[in-house]
Amino acid sequence: MAGWSVAIDLTREDEGSPTFVRIARAITDDIRRGRLRAGDALPGTRTLASSLGVHRNTVLAAYRELFAEGWIASEKARGTFVAVEIPDAQPRRFSAKAALAREIAARPGYDVVGPVARERGAGPLALAAEARMRVPLPPRRAASIAKDTVMTLGGGVPDVRLVPTSELARALRRVLRRNAIEVLSYGDAEGPLALRRAVAKMVAATRGVAASEDHVLVARGSQMGVDLVARTLLSPGDVVAVEALGYRPAWEALRASGATLVPVPVDGHGMDVGALERLASEQPIRGVYVTPHHQFPTTVTLAPARRLRLLDLAREKRFWVLEDDYDHEFHYEGRPVLPLASADVHGVVVYVGTLSKVLAPGMRIGFVVAPVPVIERLAATRRLVDRQGDHLLATAIAELVEEGELQRHIRRAKRIYSERRARLASLLEAHLGGILSFELPTGGTAIWARVASDVPVDAWATRALDEAALILQPARQFAFDGKSRSFLRVGFAQHDEREAKEAIRRMVSVLPKRGASR
Amino acid sequence: MAGWSVAIDLTREDEGSPTFVRIARAITDDIRRGRLRAGDALPGTRTLASSLGVHRNTVLAAYRELFAEGWIASEKARGTFVAVEIPDAQPRRFSAKAALAREIAARPGYDVVGPVARERGAGPLALAAEARMRVPLPPRRAASIAKDTVMTLGGGVPDVRLVPTSELARALRRVLRRNAIEVLSYGDAEGPLALRRAVAKMVAATRGVAASEDHVLVARGSQMGVDLVARTLLSPGDVVAVEALGYRPAWEALRASGATLVPVPVDGHGMDVGALERLASEQPIRGVYVTPHHQFPTTVTLAPARRLRLLDLAREKRFWVLEDDYDHEFHYEGRPVLPLASADVHGVVVYVGTLSKVLAPGMRIGFVVAPVPVIERLAATRRLVDRQGDHLLATAIAELVEEGELQRHIRRAKRIYSERRARLASLLEAHLGGILSFELPTGGTAIWARVASDVPVDAWATRALDEAALILQPARQFAFDGKSRSFLRVGFAQHDEREAKEAIRRMVSVLPKRGASR
Repeated sequence: MAGWSVAIDLTREDEGSPTFVRIARAITDDIRRGRLRAGDALPGTRTLASSLGVHRNTVLAAYRELFAEGWIASEKARGTFVAVEIPDAQPRRFSAKAALAREIAARPGYDVVGPVARERGAGPLALAAEARMRVPLPPRRAASIAKDTVMTLGGGVPDVRLVPTSELARALRRVLRRNAIEVLSYGDAEGPLALRRAVAKMVAATRGVAASEDHVLVARGSQMGVDLVARTLLSPGDVVAVEALGYRPAWEALRASGATLVPVPVDGHGMDVGALERLASEQPIRGVYVTPHHQFPTTVTLAPARRLRLLDLAREKRFWVLEDDYDHEFHYEGRPVLPLASADVHGVVVYVGTLSKVLAPGMRIGFVVAPVPVIERLAATRRLVDRQGDHLLATAIAELVEEGELQRHIRRAKRIYSERRARLASLLEAHLGGILSFELPTGGTAIWARVASDVPVDAWATRALDEAALILQPARQFAFDGKSRSFLRVGFAQHDEREAKEAIRRMVSVLPKRGASR
Repeated sequence: MAGWSVAIDLTREDEGSPTFVRIARAITDDIRRGRLRAGDALPGTRTLASSLGVHRNTVLAAYRELFAEGWIASEKARGTFVAVEIPDAQPRRFSAKAALAREIAARPGYDVVGPVARERGAGPLALAAEARMRVPLPPRRAASIAKDTVMTLGGGVPDVRLVPTSELARALRRVLRRNAIEVLSYGDAEGPLALRRAVAKMVAATRGVAASEDHVLVARGSQMGVDLVARTLLSPGDVVAVEALGYRPAWEALRASGATLVPVPVDGHGMDVGALERLASEQPIRGVYVTPHHQFPTTVTLAPARRLRLLDLAREKRFWVLEDDYDHEFHYEGRPVLPLASADVHGVVVYVGTLSKVLAPGMRIGFVVAPVPVIERLAATRRLVDRQGDHLLATAIAELVEEGELQRHIRRAKRIYSERRARLASLLEAHLGGILSFELPTGGTAIWARVASDVPVDAWATRALDEAALILQPARQFAFDGKSRSFLRVGFAQHDEREAKEAIRRMVSVLPKRGASR
């Protein structure tokens, strides 16, 4: 078994039997309960004898017994192995009948998957159809895209083929050469100093947020930032306001800490802060979770007057604002809008950002920027979760920032995504002009398109998944009330020209008849 | 600023002023509130003009204004930067006066640090003096160990200098070449299939646990395993039994999910299962957290009769057993004892293990083995925490297992630690023979030594830290009741001969007078 020293348990009941019988019984038990499976190699007799502290002849006797009973077989080149035809196998592996399995079936779980996946049984495709994707991209060099290759037109996913993997591998190797002891040992729960410094400089330079390394905690993506804030700042029964169209995994993290969520309407200028004010005058609000930069999923930017009002309201009504600035870098026109945190003179904002979007979703590197006492408390919570982050990867990424490599990558990705945004817009206008209408988003990775009211948008998404292996994201997935709305989120970042054309072709091919109920 | 495009906020109140004045004011504001600091480089005039969408002459005018007012300076080689003598700096950075900071001060936090660090103000050294260490090792090649280099004689820490870092770097590079798209994209919350398979094979081969990849969730160290179980299986008010001498970070994770903990005594044969039975007949117990293999911190193995009784009791009283097998590999004599999970016919055990101990604490790779429905539910909780693990690192480690590299490393580390165990035992006998008494542990990374009753053990640890830069771990740190006991946990794994001698020299040099109160 691949170099492991095999353990065989001889401390069973039959202590009166001869040792060779006990060894044979231990092995048949292991075969019966599925620990050893048909075709698995058994250890050599010398190895097993030495690991059990018995004479080799004893093991030979046990193997002879097993061979005679048909449990094991031997071949010259392969050695001894479990017979393919097992006489009496009744595997007793972990099963759904286990006591714990019964217990867990009776407990409520977390609903991170949303209505589509829930209704469809949460298979991998249905899961993928939810807010953030996990469908692998086709390799760029493939001659054509196979019909059954699942594609997604969902948003929020960068093209990981752009990641500078050689530079990353080199940085990892350098860190393992120079800083091995440091990154391999226990370290700060806040993250390695090098990356905290780099993030502080980055948010100061690009986002106008006054921060030093002491204001930064490196988290595993923005999701961990939200979860740590929830576990640290919420108690059961607290009320948290969220966007009525928004990001479900963050909602579930807030709920998991016992919060009750209340939805606030979203319009073309982001969260309706007037509605929030009315809510806050009716009941105490503990916190507000908001995506002001490119509202998730509608991509709009929170209007300047609303931003200022939200900060004032937070001070007046004594709630905190959890600002999720999940794709700050991807802004394609004119001046970037600075985050709420840059104007937070009262100290009410906890700012969450991520590098997972600009690099790769599979690299879970995000950050929280907040007042020092908040960071310290978040770090204490963090110690419970996983003790500390990925200091090897985080230090390597700090090097990529130091060298300007990450910045170069961001500039390159921005240029490419900006082209893809324009291309998707043309494709949608050319092929679905009468069906979809939208404004070109100023940033982000997706277009939020209104669907003609006589086109049944949810049925469209279902047909796309079932008949064209295409994942579409209708508004219902992001709706707090789970109700349908005539909008689609259409992602443009991850597809090159050929892929975008193929995805739109599939989308058009399953367009339902207009006028059917949605 | 290191390649970032600098954002300057021109959307302030003074909209009537000329643009060059608004640019100048935006920059002085940024200097006042600490976003730009003395000596920071300002962007070049061309760059800034282009990013603000203004003529370069406008930026030149703003810079002239700032230069005249003394805010900025310029040097030929360096360009323009914030003046070192700032005229009127009143930094308005995040401070302890922030609204959120006040609020958080009023909230209870988690106590992962234990009594010593708490009483000493939780500075880095005091934190390090707690259960798991973060003091970096001295480089092996240093000519001598400086007097003020902090050393630790705590247990639980491997020698990260043994980690095969070149092989790891190569494996990471290979994965980034071959599987980049896969490991950089969203993936399974359970962990990459390759490592789940490798772990299933490993626990089947070495620990007698019947498992396939579906029974395995890759977690970030055993800590995340415990935390996920707590968040998934506990509700506020549930009672969980723990060892009266035990592992505080796990206790705090259980508490964070609202559980009430009750201590069960520990003796020379591990947890007192008879005492647990009495407890369970007095009140409903929801779960038991136990370290049966090498009890933490006493290093003893749970006696066979107690193991069987514990499993039966779990079925009778309907509680689950969370088995933390945190250093299974390090067993130096004869047959390893198999975990409770290997004999769990009722399906009541959730088994948690880790590779962080056999590789490096900074590499957070652990695993949970449990019935399939439990794994599925843990994965749903995991999606809230950080979406998924380190698929790059996990896949690289799966390759190291596939190649037998991890197994070679474990064999080598075991041989070295076994020698270090013997050496530490001799050193303790030679230099502290009348003070410490102990049995040689059969496994693990530490000796649990009884301290002569007339030696004040806590005072000894305090003096060691204050006067000899040496971290000792008295029993009190691990005590559920926080009370003193005459025991020390003395680690042997992380020190080579020279280091062990120096640590013992320091330990002896601060031995308090016998007969003083402890």
